Amino acid sequence: MRLHHVGVAVADLRPAIDMYTSLFGAELTHRASNEKDGLEAAFLQMGDAEIELLSPLRDDSAVGKFLAKRGPGMHHVAYAVSDIRKAMADARAAGLELIDAEPRMGMHGTLIAFVHPKSVGGVLTEFVEA
Amino acid sequence: MRLHHVGVAVADLRPAIDMYTSLFGAELTHRASNEKDGLEAAFLQMGDAEIELLSPLRDDSAVGKFLAKRGPGMHHVAYAVSDIRKAMADARAAGLELIDAEPRMGMHGTLIAFVHPKSVGGVLTEFVEA
Repeated sequence: MRLHHVGVAVADLRPAIDMYTSLFGAELTHRASNEKDGLEAAFLQMGDAEIELLSPLRDDSAVGKFLAKRGPGMHHVAYAVSDIRKAMADARAAGLELIDAEPRMGMHGTLIAFVHPKSVGGVLTEFVEA
Repeated sequence: MRLHHVGVAVADLRPAIDMYTSLFGAELTHRASNEKDGLEAAFLQMGDAEIELLSPLRDDSAVGKFLAKRGPGMHHVAYAVSDIRKAMADARAAGLELIDAEPRMGMHGTLIAFVHPKSVGGVLTEFVEA
C-alpha cells in the first residue's frame, strides 16, 4: 500500500485551496461534490500523494458534525490498495471494524472503504482501490 | 513541495508498528528518540511518503500532552521543501505563524520547522528540508 491522500476538513474550500496552492505548491487537480453525503471536496496533488480538502454542504453531514465537534483539521488518511476486497478481508480477519461493509464509489471514481478510527489508533483510515 | 509524512500520535510504538507493517504493508525504515523533546518515533515507508508514529517518553512532553487532551490519532502533516529558509520566509510573509523561528534538526537528520495549526486550518504543518 502507498499513502494515497490525507483528508483535511475545512469550513470553506476556496481559502484553503488558495493556501495550499500558493504557499505549499499544491496543484488543484479536481473538485467534486456528493449531495448524498453532504460534502464537497477539492483534490490537491503534492508529489505522489494528495491533500483532499473536505467541506460540508450541510451541518448534519458527517463532515459538518466533525467540524462542530473537533474544529477544522486532519480528518482521515487513505492508502491505495490494488484489491480493496482483499484489503477489507485482511482488516476484518485482523479484528478491525470496517465502517463500510462493502466497497462503495468514492469521489475519485474508484472504490473506497473506511476502517473505524477506534481500530486504527484513532485514525479514520480509508482504502482506495487504485 | 511534496507530501513527506503524516505524523500519528500513539501511546505505544510496538503495536502500532505491527499494525502498519502487517496490515498496511508499511516498511519500518528507522526508529529514533529525542530525549530533549521527550518523544520516540518510528518511520514507516508507504510509497513515496511516510507514516511517522510518535510516542511520548514523558507525560509532560508535547506529544504526551496531545495524547492526554485529544487521544491517539493524526498529529501533523509534513511537506518536503528544497529550501526550508525560503519556505519559512514565504509562510511568514503570507501571515502564517511559525512555531520555530529558525530551522532545527529533526529526527530524519534534516532541517525542520513547524507552522502553527491555527495558521493552517487546524493542521499542525511541518516543513522538512529534503
